[in-house]
Amino acid sequence: MSKLLRGGRLGAVRKDVTKFTSSIESDKRLLKSVIRINQAHTTMLMEQEIIELTDGVKLLQALEKAETAKLNLLLEDIHVSLEEKIIEKAGPEIGGNLHIGKSRNDQVSTAIRIELRQNLIHLMTSIIKLQEALIKLAEEHVETVVPGYTHLQTAQPVTFAHYLLSHVDSLQRDLDRLREAYKRVNLCPMGAGALATTSFPIKRERSADLLGFSGVLENSIDAVGSRDFILETVAHLAIMAVGVSRLAEDLIVWNSFEFGIVELPDDFSSASSIMPQKKNPEVLEVVRARTSHILGNFITSATTLKALPSTYNLDFQEMTPVLWESLESITSSLDMLSKLMPQLKVTKNVFNKPLLGFSTATELSNMLVRKHKVPFRTAHKIVGSLVKKLIENKLTLSDVTPKLLQKVAKTSCGLSLNVNVEDIRVSIDPLEFVKAHNASGGPSPKQVKKMLKTRKQWIALSKSSLSDEKFRLNKAENTLESLVKSYLALDNSKRAKLINSSERVG
Amino acid sequence: MSKLLRGGRLGAVRKDVTKFTSSIESDKRLLKSVIRINQAHTTMLMEQEIIELTDGVKLLQALEKAETAKLNLLLEDIHVSLEEKIIEKAGPEIGGNLHIGKSRNDQVSTAIRIELRQNLIHLMTSIIKLQEALIKLAEEHVETVVPGYTHLQTAQPVTFAHYLLSHVDSLQRDLDRLREAYKRVNLCPMGAGALATTSFPIKRERSADLLGFSGVLENSIDAVGSRDFILETVAHLAIMAVGVSRLAEDLIVWNSFEFGIVELPDDFSSASSIMPQKKNPEVLEVVRARTSHILGNFITSATTLKALPSTYNLDFQEMTPVLWESLESITSSLDMLSKLMPQLKVTKNVFNKPLLGFSTATELSNMLVRKHKVPFRTAHKIVGSLVKKLIENKLTLSDVTPKLLQKVAKTSCGLSLNVNVEDIRVSIDPLEFVKAHNASGGPSPKQVKKMLKTRKQWIALSKSSLSDEKFRLNKAENTLESLVKSYLALDNSKRAKLINSSERVG
Amino acid sequence: MSKLLRGGRLGAVRKDVTKFTSSIESDKRLLKSVIRINQAHTTMLMEQEIIELTDGVKLLQALEKAETAKLNLLLEDIHVSLEEKIIEKAGPEIGGNLHIGKSRNDQVSTAIRIELRQNLIHLMTSIIKLQEALIKLAEEHVETVVPGYTHLQTAQPVTFAHYLLSHVDSLQRDLDRLREAYKRVNLCPMGAGALATTSFPIKRERSADLLGFSGVLENSIDAVGSRDFILETVAHLAIMAVGVSRLAEDLIVWNSFEFGIVELPDDFSSASSIMPQKKNPEVLEVVRARTSHILGNFITSATTLKALPSTYNLDFQEMTPVLWESLESITSSLDMLSKLMPQLKVTKNVFNKPLLGFSTATELSNMLVRKHKVPFRTAHKIVGSLVKKLIENKLTLSDVTPKLLQKVAKTSCGLSLNVNVEDIRVSIDPLEFVKAHNASGGPSPKQVKKMLKTRKQWIALSKSSLSDEKFRLNKAENTLESLVKSYLALDNSKRAKLINSSERVG
Amino acid sequence: MSKLLRGGRLGAVRKDVTKFTSSIESDKRLLKSVIRINQAHTTMLMEQEIIELTDGVKLLQALEKAETAKLNLLLEDIHVSLEEKIIEKAGPEIGGNLHIGKSRNDQVSTAIRIELRQNLIHLMTSIIKLQEALIKLAEEHVETVVPGYTHLQTAQPVTFAHYLLSHVDSLQRDLDRLREAYKRVNLCPMGAGALATTSFPIKRERSADLLGFSGVLENSIDAVGSRDFILETVAHLAIMAVGVSRLAEDLIVWNSFEFGIVELPDDFSSASSIMPQKKNPEVLEVVRARTSHILGNFITSATTLKALPSTYNLDFQEMTPVLWESLESITSSLDMLSKLMPQLKVTKNVFNKPLLGFSTATELSNMLVRKHKVPFRTAHKIVGSLVKKLIENKLTLSDVTPKLLQKVAKTSCGLSLNVNVEDIRVSIDPLEFVKAHNASGGPSPKQVKKMLKTRKQWIALSKSSLSDEKFRLNKAENTLESLVKSYLALDNSKRAKLINSSERVG
Repeated sequence: MSKLLRGGRLGAVRKDVTKFTSSIESDKRLLKSVIRINQAHTTMLMEQEIIELTDGVKLLQALEKAETAKLNLLLEDIHVSLEEKIIEKAGPEIGGNLHIGKSRNDQVSTAIRIELRQNLIHLMTSIIKLQEALIKLAEEHVETVVPGYTHLQTAQPVTFAHYLLSHVDSLQRDLDRLREAYKRVNLCPMGAGALATTSFPIKRERSADLLGFSGVLENSIDAVGSRDFILETVAHLAIMAVGVSRLAEDLIVWNSFEFGIVELPDDFSSASSIMPQKKNPEVLEVVRARTSHILGNFITSATTLKALPSTYNLDFQEMTPVLWESLESITSSLDMLSKLMPQLKVTKNVFNKPLLGFSTATELSNMLVRKHKVPFRTAHKIVGSLVKKLIENKLTLSDVTPKLLQKVAKTSCGLSLNVNVEDIRVSIDPLEFVKAHNASGGPSPKQVKKMLKTRKQWIALSKSSLSDEKFRLNKAENTLESLVKSYLALDNSKRAKLINSSERVG
Repeated sequence: MSKLLRGGRLGAVRKDVTKFTSSIESDKRLLKSVIRINQAHTTMLMEQEIIELTDGVKLLQALEKAETAKLNLLLEDIHVSLEEKIIEKAGPEIGGNLHIGKSRNDQVSTAIRIELRQNLIHLMTSIIKLQEALIKLAEEHVETVVPGYTHLQTAQPVTFAHYLLSHVDSLQRDLDRLREAYKRVNLCPMGAGALATTSFPIKRERSADLLGFSGVLENSIDAVGSRDFILETVAHLAIMAVGVSRLAEDLIVWNSFEFGIVELPDDFSSASSIMPQKKNPEVLEVVRARTSHILGNFITSATTLKALPSTYNLDFQEMTPVLWESLESITSSLDMLSKLMPQLKVTKNVFNKPLLGFSTATELSNMLVRKHKVPFRTAHKIVGSLVKKLIENKLTLSDVTPKLLQKVAKTSCGLSLNVNVEDIRVSIDPLEFVKAHNASGGPSPKQVKKMLKTRKQWIALSKSSLSDEKFRLNKAENTLESLVKSYLALDNSKRAKLINSSERVG
Repeated sequence: MSKLLRGGRLGAVRKDVTKFTSSIESDKRLLKSVIRINQAHTTMLMEQEIIELTDGVKLLQALEKAETAKLNLLLEDIHVSLEEKIIEKAGPEIGGNLHIGKSRNDQVSTAIRIELRQNLIHLMTSIIKLQEALIKLAEEHVETVVPGYTHLQTAQPVTFAHYLLSHVDSLQRDLDRLREAYKRVNLCPMGAGALATTSFPIKRERSADLLGFSGVLENSIDAVGSRDFILETVAHLAIMAVGVSRLAEDLIVWNSFEFGIVELPDDFSSASSIMPQKKNPEVLEVVRARTSHILGNFITSATTLKALPSTYNLDFQEMTPVLWESLESITSSLDMLSKLMPQLKVTKNVFNKPLLGFSTATELSNMLVRKHKVPFRTAHKIVGSLVKKLIENKLTLSDVTPKLLQKVAKTSCGLSLNVNVEDIRVSIDPLEFVKAHNASGGPSPKQVKKMLKTRKQWIALSKSSLSDEKFRLNKAENTLESLVKSYLALDNSKRAKLINSSERVG
Repeated sequence: MSKLLRGGRLGAVRKDVTKFTSSIESDKRLLKSVIRINQAHTTMLMEQEIIELTDGVKLLQALEKAETAKLNLLLEDIHVSLEEKIIEKAGPEIGGNLHIGKSRNDQVSTAIRIELRQNLIHLMTSIIKLQEALIKLAEEHVETVVPGYTHLQTAQPVTFAHYLLSHVDSLQRDLDRLREAYKRVNLCPMGAGALATTSFPIKRERSADLLGFSGVLENSIDAVGSRDFILETVAHLAIMAVGVSRLAEDLIVWNSFEFGIVELPDDFSSASSIMPQKKNPEVLEVVRARTSHILGNFITSATTLKALPSTYNLDFQEMTPVLWESLESITSSLDMLSKLMPQLKVTKNVFNKPLLGFSTATELSNMLVRKHKVPFRTAHKIVGSLVKKLIENKLTLSDVTPKLLQKVAKTSCGLSLNVNVEDIRVSIDPLEFVKAHNASGGPSPKQVKKMLKTRKQWIALSKSSLSDEKFRLNKAENTLESLVKSYLALDNSKRAKLINSSERVG
């Protein structure tokens, strides 16, 4: 622990204890954000005339240098590490002022939020990229008929595009959830102090603004003591992970020699020179496994937080590494999938396998209902008997003739049916099946094209709103930077003027 | 398994197997929703002229009777159970038509969503009630000073109202999350069929509308195969549970004889006639424990879903019971807390304990900075020395005199200080401390009153939007009911006309 | 809450509170155990002359009647419920003595352990039954060659028996773990009181003995405050669940039309009359899903316990229902699988699929090393080139001739090879492959038979040790019953004598 | 991916893919074990005359150098990385022989087991160390009376030693569980190959022996495909973590100013120079939080494994890092606690607080039962009335006189009591209370001393069995080392002899 905080009251510092309790390894990524927070805070302190302009500028100068300086990584956290450096550079009296009106408790939550904000934007970009890759692949497979499975049993034909779009929609909900979480992340705890704000006349809204937050996290106990924004983020990642894991699972199964619906690109799988039947889906297995980590991480962070007393407890620091790990796991998994998709080969003639043909039998039945006014249940019974007969004779649906159908209808239900060849052919052809399933959201090329169009619009909207937010954040960052530069550039005589104008800059 | 679906192809039904795979126990609560879905579906089929008006009305008649009839609970699920009953009542030919253009796969997801919708509204009402109870209690304690803890160590004085409001804000985020989840729950999968819609000219938007949904869950694979709406709900409940558990934990600790900050109402705790020091916080312990169930339930449902192939798998049915259990656990916990709060006694003079007084020492230091222009760090050093001296002499902050302060300032820092008695008194008085901490979101009565005002506005808004949604749902329910009644009431000759007008009714 | 414990100090009882905190629903199953505990405790109190013989007998009489009496289910738990009944029957003075030297805290833990003991024995029986079913099926498939998969890609041929035995071994470890856990479960907390034992001269060893425990759980704080025996049990169930889930997963995949390695029995799956390709593996899907519950339950119970203060907290009661649920889920899943196995059909000629043949290519290479002293890596290279050539010409391994092999060896490595037809045939034949893989634990019929033999010995041992333990428990139960009967039967004059002899009975 | 395995069949290697799927970072710790495995395997191959002695020695030479050589960390795992190095050093023909009769699948599981074995021994040592620290502290506090809490409410007096021993017992069960797990970890998968052993005449028992395993993990599918040993280890760590977390929680609460039962050593907590009431229990908070990670890690690893097909899948590799992390978290936490304990200060006079005195009231009641033959329930009633009267008059139990007791007995129950002063004093004195609670496992100094004695014997036994195992492992390691050295040292002419003698060496 830094001598800074222990004062004279506690005994010597133990290295093993500091090593055990230190969060410095995980904190490193926060350094830039912590410096920005201190710049914004110092600026606000000057503007509010809580500290002298001269002192403030010296703090800014010390902060400027800290960015590149080597910090003492033997300390307990990045906050103390930076403060020590500032005091070393600006002297204890002035450096000590960095402390006024804030505490580690509000600062650490602010820093995590700034870093998380960036990571969320990065992740949302990756989601959109994967949606684009899925859509692009879907456009090539609007008429590629594949078996649709339920219970891992072939049910009815769909198109590969139809399947891919189902994942686009699932990812869209993931995106929506993250967007909503982002709103709760992007609020500023600064000024909440240890838990009770401060008696100095700080202006919390100004700090929030300078740091690009959309507002202040108001109640100061809540501001330092809440970590539901971490739980929420990890929960959303876990839900997304489950969806992504199902996509990986599908492709692993479909890539098996037995299913043979897709073929994974060579450089996303591994193989053996003398076992040509093998194409181990390594990337997908790692994706599937890594998504489990995020479920575990949710439990880690929720269990850490549960049953803690309100306000700040050091336990909090152990939640942050799993947040970063979860973000990295899911983001890298999405990126891998985005790269894999364009190279995924889809087998064109899966439906040649004999038994698969029966997957269109429901349509034969529906046709009898629609075209021949056979009651639904009777039609069902006729086709059931027909299928039984075909299997007994080792035939498939493509062997059905009007005559055979007529005969079965007579025997099983006493009905006289006169179905023409073309109607039978259309009913049992997988592509015709798909075309006929034209209710909204269905596999028919018409519906799929309609969906493709709207999903592309979604993508455009997502991209534009994401780019707006990035612009907003950059603007805030630039504003703070310019402000700091102005302070550093001006000589003492001009500093008084700046104060007045700075209000307008932000 | 019902003979209905097995057809002739599979062998005899085993009771033990049906018992093992049956979801009927958990399904019972869905019966009403399943009937409504079938009413809406039948209506749509008639309107689309997919089935004859006469047949449709017979189906509606059978559905009318099914509501009160005893279903066969030995079957595998409510859907089959109901269908058997309909076929029994309307005969196989007509009853079989209930099947056209839908499947168990879309129907079960629709039924869960209808039921979940109601439960979410009920839960949101409970959240608002607890917020109201917290606000009401807070209004009585705007000037009740209590120690604010960090690390379970007294840090600085706050007010009880300030503390209570931190939980109001946390609950508000829970409410927001549920509201957002609700939007994703309130979409209709009907018409997605087994996974590929249907070749009958159904109108999915009409079914959705009749059932009070805000729209259709479009992609049919996604519609039957997605359960992220369950994961999302349980995740949000888990996050809320963690927050509620922390509230329970605070009250358990504060109700201990040693902390003595609150006293639990007699009828929410248990006690012993000869151990008067005991007041076991039973309700709070159960709340704390039950919230753990929701974390476990998230894992149950996420692990069930993870790595499943896309579309429908029977595994899904095992997720639903934990959804209902989670909702009940959290809702009943919130309701208990809402009842407990009005009776919670808060100790008025907690600050009489000697060491607690030092929790205002930071303010003495701040006062030297503000009023006497002492540099922050120097002031800190002076007060540090002062505190050390006081403890050595078994004194507390209230024993500080201007003279003593002057002496310590001289000895420790060579400063000459002239502080008046009143400034010292104000600095070290807990209530004055609280009043001085007046930054936005702080514990000062002024800030707390401001927060109380806006939180009450939040409550009003929440209530009004909730009541709008309830009105919307009721209206849809009534519309469908009237429509069904009109069909049932009209004699055959008039039914043709109805078809045309029904479009206008919905 | 019962008036019994509240005494006069606390106010009226609230029904809603009691309902919320009551564990009575889950407690019902403990009633028999709680009565037994009270019988044993009363016996010990008489033997130790802590209570009068006459009073003790009256308590035993009241307990006798309680078993069939209706308990008040509106109370908070089974312990209070029973005590009320005893006091009602034996009067307050004598009934009150039931309390001496014990508390709910030790009694509840004892009751759970008695019930859990039974459940563990039941579960262990189910494990053995499944092992037997697997072994029986394995005996029929010692020479049934099936593809062995890694990464869900065909790797090398194994036998179905070899595969089944891998699950027998995994279950054996599950059994071992439960046996070890049983030792820690089967210790008696009685006499630990609320947490500090009692000042009455009780004899804890005697109570433990009368209840069939193998010993006393000594430290009284540990005795009432530990629940690691629940966590351990649920953890072991979760680990078993993961193994069982993998078995279910294998069968689901292999039952798919595409893999076609096994065919599920009709009455353990569901099908459609017009979609003959479908055979939904419903039982296995439910098994797979239900195992997820146990993972969730581990989190529920571990999170409940974590961070609780030492000794008893009411939170404990919320752990027990998930313990019972976990036991029921896994036991019923094992039982279903035991019933399913005998009817599982295994496809005999899976290896007819062309590409699968290459799975023996490694053996062709090994043969070159062994019989022709070709270096391992050179042999590998030759076979690699051979495979490439075959695929280019749409041939398989069965088309390899000595001539072709010779040619490829020359071209690729400059080697002159003279391999005879028989060596090639043996190398590439799946059954021969399996026979050659004869290292210990391998798929060769010889190894498999050896394993079958030892596994049957394991089963015999498991059964015998389980039956010993059941015998031991029954004996203890009978002893206590006889003792109680003797007390109830003897008239007052003879009771003194009994006391002396009772020590010898137990 | 290494070119080694891809052969010519697959395309170019992608760096991003390798980075994504690589386990090399986590594998580094396995390098030494992997080399040993290859030494043992090579030795066995020579002994079985599967490879030539000359070739074997060259392999051993290459392995010797590999230990210090820089491996290519851009590859996918340590196994390939090492193999590449061997081939580079020994040439492709001889280096390729390293492959005979084994595969990555058996090798990786073997390596993890070797490393885990060491880690378990290390952890068990840490458990014993903490038990010793607790026992040592307990010996100083056999008569230090502290309040025993249930529901975080003072219940009855116990001694600090009694409390500490409850954790010794809990840790003993943790130790037992790990010892049992160790038996299942310490089995050797080598020779199982990819999943089907090999057709070479390997001797699996010999490899197992050379590597210090207690036996072979027989069934080869089970050997490469099982990871329950990881789940079991993490589960046991999680259960231990929950126990350790409760110890941390107790100390955090008792270290609060309000409870004031213990005082944490300065260098294991943090404080503020001007807030002397603060002593943040940082080490304990980190312990408490880190134990949550292990719960999460159990879910991560169980969810990864669940629903995987049997045998090897790449998903496995993602389980190992969480295994190591869990071991490090718990081991370092135990070590910290072992260091903290000797410096923990316990408050001697906690019982001076007025209300706490009532915690002995049950004993006053018991005394009336024992010494004055008052029925239990009547005694309870008398003391209940007495307590009520005392509280009304703001008195405590120490104000009770024989006269007052007589009066209350008369009024409340019409009993005439003649209790002497000494009996009252003894009943209500906390230390006397503790002494009287002398049932086995109770808080009385006599019982605690008895427990201390047996626990010390446990420790001695644990240490001795652990040291036996360490000796056994070292011996195996040394034997292998000598064997390898002999091979390397002997010149070619002598190698033939060695083969014959090597069998005797092992």
